[in-house]
Amino acid sequence: MTISPDKINKSIDNTRPLIHSLYENPIKPEEIEAKSFEAIDKEVETHDFTAEQWIVVRRMLHTTANFALVDKIRFSDDAIDSAVSALERGCAIFTDSNMIRTGISAARLRAVHAGYSKDDIVCHVADRDVAGESKSNGLPRSIYAVRKAREMLNGGIAVFGNAPTALMELSRMIVEDGIKPAAVIAMPVGFVHVVESKEELMSLPVPYIAVTGRLGGSPLAVSVIHSLCAIAVERKSA
Amino acid sequence: MTISPDKINKSIDNTRPLIHSLYENPIKPEEIEAKSFEAIDKEVETHDFTAEQWIVVRRMLHTTANFALVDKIRFSDDAIDSAVSALERGCAIFTDSNMIRTGISAARLRAVHAGYSKDDIVCHVADRDVAGESKSNGLPRSIYAVRKAREMLNGGIAVFGNAPTALMELSRMIVEDGIKPAAVIAMPVGFVHVVESKEELMSLPVPYIAVTGRLGGSPLAVSVIHSLCAIAVERKSA
Repeated sequence: MTISPDKINKSIDNTRPLIHSLYENPIKPEEIEAKSFEAIDKEVETHDFTAEQWIVVRRMLHTTANFALVDKIRFSDDAIDSAVSALERGCAIFTDSNMIRTGISAARLRAVHAGYSKDDIVCHVADRDVAGESKSNGLPRSIYAVRKAREMLNGGIAVFGNAPTALMELSRMIVEDGIKPAAVIAMPVGFVHVVESKEELMSLPVPYIAVTGRLGGSPLAVSVIHSLCAIAVERKSA
Repeated sequence: MTISPDKINKSIDNTRPLIHSLYENPIKPEEIEAKSFEAIDKEVETHDFTAEQWIVVRRMLHTTANFALVDKIRFSDDAIDSAVSALERGCAIFTDSNMIRTGISAARLRAVHAGYSKDDIVCHVADRDVAGESKSNGLPRSIYAVRKAREMLNGGIAVFGNAPTALMELSRMIVEDGIKPAAVIAMPVGFVHVVESKEELMSLPVPYIAVTGRLGGSPLAVSVIHSLCAIAVERKSA
């Protein structure tokens, strides 16, 4: 999976920086993506994902270069259909971190539904009122950020790459308040509350794409949304 | 490293969502961080990092939960001193992705140097002029984004979690144009140009913190800046 550093160091000649080869033989972003996908396809010889699930998984591997993910990615049976339909309707997208909001490409969303703008991607975690409630009640801001999004979570896509407490609050709202997201992208990362927050979500009757265990993160969550856009575009042209 | 899903599923009772325990016994963010660091310290029994390097490495593990990183993180001898001094001077911070710019906390920077604002963190990759130059020359936008930052890269900290071509262009500017960053955080991720872009940077006489191989990413890059802030704060109070 890695090239021997010795091999590379020998090929580095500081009188001619590497970028010059790229100036001379530019590679387009689409070609880089295709080459990367090819490398991933070669490395993961067998898997049990459907063709559309693999589009999601491959982009998650592309984003992280972490092949340990392959065994940890879970889809509910209805996840891709429900999420893609929601995107085609131009559903709102809730994110638990501003990094995810920044990372999601409005252009990719518009390729699915022309009406999308950055305003349809919502993150409340840094909002002043959310910070205020958190301070006065002594509970994490991410809980109030999810509560504030209550309306849009019905029929929206909820994306978690960071805050397990936000995901746990959503699970409560699904169970106790009857909130029905079109899909939940469940991949907070870390060491406290993370594992159980995802197990709880996966036990609920809601469409989900999740990463079990400790792994997760904002770029993964972004890559899932982008791959769902790619699936929607493929379905259109099929 | 992972808890058996069977064990967890048994403990999930959907009539009482997990978040209720947190309502009753709230944990502060500082406690969650301390618990996570404790878990990491337990898992990595031995390593060759200095005490300050470990502050950086531990936060990188905290951000990704990917212990495969431990063997891949590299520091030049002068990296932490040079980067911390630069932050204490309020140096500009160049980032190769807007996700990194969004993720870096201005509050954490201000704890080191009171004058910091979000405007001191610069990302040019989505600028209109950069997109225009890229289009007319057929080279990646990230190359023009680095060139546009030329002035601030002298004495600034350059942060790469995404674009190996941006890192390769910086290496060229160091070699050919005599640009001298205070530190380079070199952790683009992926399958094309990534490995060699980092090997080239590490062969240059510039302070760096890098991840060898394919691993990297925006949250890692953010975590390095935040850990450097933590070291600066610790040094102040020492």
